[in-house]
Amino acid sequence: MERNLKELISEMTLEEKAGMCSGFDFWYLKSVDRLGIPKVMVSDGPHGLRKQDEKGDHLGLNGSIQAVCFPPACLSACSFDRELMTEFGEVIGKEAQANDVSVILGPAVNIKRSPLCGRNFEYYSEDPYLAGETAAAFINGVQSQHVGTSIKHFAANNQEFNRMSNSSEVDERTLREIYFPAFETAVKKSQPYTVMCSYNRINGTYASEDPWLLTEVLRDEWGFEGYVVSDWGAVNDRILALKAGLELEMPSSGGVTDREIIQAVQDGSLEEAVLDRAVERILRISFLYLDNKREQPFTLEADHDFARRLAEQSMVLLKNEEVLPLGEKEKVAFIGGFAKTPRFQGGGSSHINSFRVSSALEAVSHMAKASENVTYAEGFSVEQDVYDEALAAEAIEAARRADKAVVFAGLPESFESESYDRSHMRLPDCQNRLIAEIIKAQPNTVVVLHNGSPVEMPWLSDVKGLMEAYLGGQAVGEAEVNLLYGKVNPSGKLAETIPCRLADNPSYLTFGDSEKTVYSEGVFVGYRYYDAREMQVAFPFGYGLSYTTFAYSNLRLDRQEITDQETLTVSVDITNTGNVAGKEVVQLYIRDNTRACRRPDKELKGYEKVTLEPGETKTVTMTLDHRSFAWYNTDLKDWYAASGKYDVMVGTSSRQICLSESVQINSSIRLPLKLDLNTTLAELSADDRTVKYGEYLKNKSYAFFGQYGGDEALSGDVKYALVDSMPMRTLVSFGICTKEEVLDVLKKLMEL
Amino acid sequence: MERNLKELISEMTLEEKAGMCSGFDFWYLKSVDRLGIPKVMVSDGPHGLRKQDEKGDHLGLNGSIQAVCFPPACLSACSFDRELMTEFGEVIGKEAQANDVSVILGPAVNIKRSPLCGRNFEYYSEDPYLAGETAAAFINGVQSQHVGTSIKHFAANNQEFNRMSNSSEVDERTLREIYFPAFETAVKKSQPYTVMCSYNRINGTYASEDPWLLTEVLRDEWGFEGYVVSDWGAVNDRILALKAGLELEMPSSGGVTDREIIQAVQDGSLEEAVLDRAVERILRISFLYLDNKREQPFTLEADHDFARRLAEQSMVLLKNEEVLPLGEKEKVAFIGGFAKTPRFQGGGSSHINSFRVSSALEAVSHMAKASENVTYAEGFSVEQDVYDEALAAEAIEAARRADKAVVFAGLPESFESESYDRSHMRLPDCQNRLIAEIIKAQPNTVVVLHNGSPVEMPWLSDVKGLMEAYLGGQAVGEAEVNLLYGKVNPSGKLAETIPCRLADNPSYLTFGDSEKTVYSEGVFVGYRYYDAREMQVAFPFGYGLSYTTFAYSNLRLDRQEITDQETLTVSVDITNTGNVAGKEVVQLYIRDNTRACRRPDKELKGYEKVTLEPGETKTVTMTLDHRSFAWYNTDLKDWYAASGKYDVMVGTSSRQICLSESVQINSSIRLPLKLDLNTTLAELSADDRTVKYGEYLKNKSYAFFGQYGGDEALSGDVKYALVDSMPMRTLVSFGICTKEEVLDVLKKLMEL
Repeated sequence: MERNLKELISEMTLEEKAGMCSGFDFWYLKSVDRLGIPKVMVSDGPHGLRKQDEKGDHLGLNGSIQAVCFPPACLSACSFDRELMTEFGEVIGKEAQANDVSVILGPAVNIKRSPLCGRNFEYYSEDPYLAGETAAAFINGVQSQHVGTSIKHFAANNQEFNRMSNSSEVDERTLREIYFPAFETAVKKSQPYTVMCSYNRINGTYASEDPWLLTEVLRDEWGFEGYVVSDWGAVNDRILALKAGLELEMPSSGGVTDREIIQAVQDGSLEEAVLDRAVERILRISFLYLDNKREQPFTLEADHDFARRLAEQSMVLLKNEEVLPLGEKEKVAFIGGFAKTPRFQGGGSSHINSFRVSSALEAVSHMAKASENVTYAEGFSVEQDVYDEALAAEAIEAARRADKAVVFAGLPESFESESYDRSHMRLPDCQNRLIAEIIKAQPNTVVVLHNGSPVEMPWLSDVKGLMEAYLGGQAVGEAEVNLLYGKVNPSGKLAETIPCRLADNPSYLTFGDSEKTVYSEGVFVGYRYYDAREMQVAFPFGYGLSYTTFAYSNLRLDRQEITDQETLTVSVDITNTGNVAGKEVVQLYIRDNTRACRRPDKELKGYEKVTLEPGETKTVTMTLDHRSFAWYNTDLKDWYAASGKYDVMVGTSSRQICLSESVQINSSIRLPLKLDLNTTLAELSADDRTVKYGEYLKNKSYAFFGQYGGDEALSGDVKYALVDSMPMRTLVSFGICTKEEVLDVLKKLMEL
Repeated sequence: MERNLKELISEMTLEEKAGMCSGFDFWYLKSVDRLGIPKVMVSDGPHGLRKQDEKGDHLGLNGSIQAVCFPPACLSACSFDRELMTEFGEVIGKEAQANDVSVILGPAVNIKRSPLCGRNFEYYSEDPYLAGETAAAFINGVQSQHVGTSIKHFAANNQEFNRMSNSSEVDERTLREIYFPAFETAVKKSQPYTVMCSYNRINGTYASEDPWLLTEVLRDEWGFEGYVVSDWGAVNDRILALKAGLELEMPSSGGVTDREIIQAVQDGSLEEAVLDRAVERILRISFLYLDNKREQPFTLEADHDFARRLAEQSMVLLKNEEVLPLGEKEKVAFIGGFAKTPRFQGGGSSHINSFRVSSALEAVSHMAKASENVTYAEGFSVEQDVYDEALAAEAIEAARRADKAVVFAGLPESFESESYDRSHMRLPDCQNRLIAEIIKAQPNTVVVLHNGSPVEMPWLSDVKGLMEAYLGGQAVGEAEVNLLYGKVNPSGKLAETIPCRLADNPSYLTFGDSEKTVYSEGVFVGYRYYDAREMQVAFPFGYGLSYTTFAYSNLRLDRQEITDQETLTVSVDITNTGNVAGKEVVQLYIRDNTRACRRPDKELKGYEKVTLEPGETKTVTMTLDHRSFAWYNTDLKDWYAASGKYDVMVGTSSRQICLSESVQINSSIRLPLKLDLNTTLAELSADDRTVKYGEYLKNKSYAFFGQYGGDEALSGDVKYALVDSMPMRTLVSFGICTKEEVLDVLKKLMEL
């Protein structure tokens, strides 16, 4: 059904148009019944629907309907599996269709700058490439069901503290390379129906009223076609926001800002065309949903199974000294409250009213043989940090009596949530203490972690097994048990580095400030920082074990040299060298050896997840383009890869590179010459356009200093370095050239 | 002799006045014979005179006169001894008087931001308090002889690469707390005759033409009364520089800039009064020297002895596992070229033509008994990084045959100098390899290091003794031997942290950029960084061993609370608990526990060096004032210490605090309220002036969210954090208040 929106809008009154630009209430847009514009609903739900129930609460803060809680982003990103993320999107899209939700308010792709950010569990990664690929795949899945997404929170919203007024102080290169690309990739690959702007300011300007952010970058550069919605309460100045490109304010402001818009149009301070354009963008998206509505049956049970499958493909086996998989005949002590009451999602707007939750204890009870051999001891409360001697003693005894112990540890609900950040990176002390005691009693101890963001692990070197379950969604227990017992072979990889200590994190001295948060580490976020500084980490980005082993061989590049207009095809063979089927994530990293600017040691630019039977070999092929090699040059205002050598590396994590080849990039871009009297002689000599002038002036300078050979102070290296660093102007003050000579050289240079 | 400079200047022609503002040549100011203004000379020389000899080279780049090379700043700062630095200044001042040098071009007080800076050997410390106290003491000594100093390089000149055009990008708080205070302290405590402005730009503006730097801060705030001289070739725009407060340009520009000044006065673009003021400032200082000239006998030999004494009081014993002091009867193998050809100064403008140099080998030859028992093997060349198998074998054999081995290691001349930075922090590989071999042959191995800036020490855990001799000046060998054999008890302390690896340094990812160098670590420089991040270091700031032991006791504060107008007197008892006389440096650190802003874990705010006989106890008393507790608040544009608790800590290094007491500061400064619709409810509640409004609005918000108790998402901690972070404006968009209610509250707040 082709709609003529311009005609429709021409029939709307100024009041109706202004009204379309803010919510009817917390979750609905306004209707205009006389023109056939119905209310449409948006709803939280990147990892499950949080649709308000219908008890008449128009604010939508009441309880939500029963739904399926899928694994939050912190876990699903570890799948490193685009197809699975698309399938996930389809499943959620169908649930939304069935519940008449036009747009789900996700995915959330903010970069994990610090492990402390309270909302990290909702975010994918510390790496923008992985976050962008994962988001695009998910969005494509949701929107294949004609339900919209709202990629959020745009942009540089990386802490919860003072999130509604804090300014993220970030240089443009860092925004372009780290904090923007997940949004950019999603816009370009999956055209999300909506983008949600964030609460915070960026370099002093509210994201909600930044025309550079919402129009120049988002629409003009990336080609975004949907509408921008404010995070709930993120609008500061409604008129500035509308002009900047924020179409929909949420929630309702009770009509206050509608009246401001009307007033601004009437007094001429806002062009009506700006309002019309905003209304058109909103209506286009609403009708995209409405005109494609259809019956969309789903069952909670089937979706529960998908939640389990997604968790199984994502949980990360971090350590396994021949302790896993568990045998069904082994006596295993399940220890810790999380075995019975797992923590499987975070708090805040994405909190789902799960229709059913599986615990590990319940899941194992369905395995006939294993259930007979599993004992359970609570050990500690899942909510409190109190070392309960009686519970502990019972748990230690259970561990001692068993062949193996599995401690289900994790962060209490109160430790991490939307709205506030963690103040430290520790598990509750009672859990660390109990784990240490368990290890003494039972050398074959495995820890399973339930947490939205990494924790310090003082007992790490003493456990034999470790599985990072993150927040597993409502099928958490089934997934854990299937992985622990080897029913499913682990294949998740860390989407973030686990540092040894919080103090190692690059944002340690700047995270969580109140007024302004300075992103002083620049592009060195996550593994980009730990690798560049060669720091020890607990587990690197991309790391994850399997019950089988893989071998890499035969890395091939289709060319040895490419221009910045060409692509490079990379192939590598991967073989399952173990005895069970398994999946491996082939990771492709790029290293820039040109020294044209400071860059991370390596950056992820490709990955593929492959399934291999024992002994099977597959060839994985990936394509790199100019952007894969480039950094954002703020002088050029564009992406730039200097001519020179780059390493193309295949590895199993950022720290374990298996194969590497070199490629020559030949750039067609000449950086503009910066020529004035402060250009140094070394700079002149470094560019083939100006080298002859540089050498001429350098030789004059050497001759000048050389005639005074008596002074060691000006001999050898000192002299060369001194002359290199001399701006042209100093040749006059040292008496090496006359002012006329220097100006003459400059004139010739300017004519180049 | 009271001179009427204004009258004198009134008799000068415009050309003569312009001419006074640049050099006659490399080292002389111009004379105006008809008015009785003679040429005066300035000369390099913070650690010894580098006065050009008189072979007719008017550029002064020819060989310099024979003089005494005292320990460079990297070593003398380790004395932590104000009296000794004053004596040092007196000695140099006398040499300058005798050689008719009016101003010596030092001290250099730039902060050691990175171990790589090529000029670190000329700088005192990573700590601004230590650098400032040391510089002030030295300047007072020099100027007591009526010879001027030129404290340099003002400011933020912390790398050699592209030093003449690079911009140091530093926020104001960091400038005020880290890069300025050494200059500020020196100006306030010792009023240097001149200040030398640096080559670099600061935040885009050349230091030589920054009126904020050279006039507002230096003269108006700190009270500087002398003249500002450019570093040689540092002037970019002569007229801007003159207006900004740079009086003297060096060297001669061949008259080019004199003519620019004349032209500018003539065309009205420069007020003649500005020129007159500059000439007056220059002449006042020249006559301060000329009118106080006097016979000043000195002998090179006596000054050589002082050079030895200064080195003895400064070299730092870093490790001693019962291997030192050496016994004269022990068979000791001296190994390494530096034992015979010590490196004792750095390259560049401060390079001295030493009249005599003592090596360790020569020094020990004068000790009757010891000389019989010392053998020497070169082991490696002092200049090249080539592992010479034959030399090595001989050295290893010598070590094996001896009771103990002392390896005289260090950096070749070519590794560090003015004009270029190091690219790594390693010793030559050949030396590291030889040391490792020596240790295998001789467990009782001591390493003595000759270097201007720290090196990585891969063999550190395997040597029994380690002495950091830095660059020892021309009496280096005598000092080393006296310390090694216990003739003198070591008492030097590290004036900088020695990190384990270069990659640990806070500037690792930003140091040495070409165009702009971003000081992204802010105030977290040196131990301020390593301590805040709880990083392992090889040796901490302030560290240094003695052949005796000391005990600290009885830390007393004269008050428990002080206002920001009052001072605090701190006393502590220190006892020599060993068997030999020795000196200890009592270090006083302050920790801010108020959390008013991000600050280093601790900062040095006092130190005293005391001499103690065995068993003797002395009481050391130090005074702290408001500044000792304060940080620079850029909103206030002033120093500020928030009300609250501070730790007053006495220790033997930044990492070993022996005693600590707490003091309450009561600030009289109320920070200005920042009130607008974006003030958060938490911010309102945090200030006693606005708390009642904050609580009122918070309670309204709790009630609003509380009525929807059904949703876990908004329960408990989440709700409180959410409400805390809400700016007042959001109460309208959430529908908690009407716009009128919120504006009414704001109106009342603005009336406070």
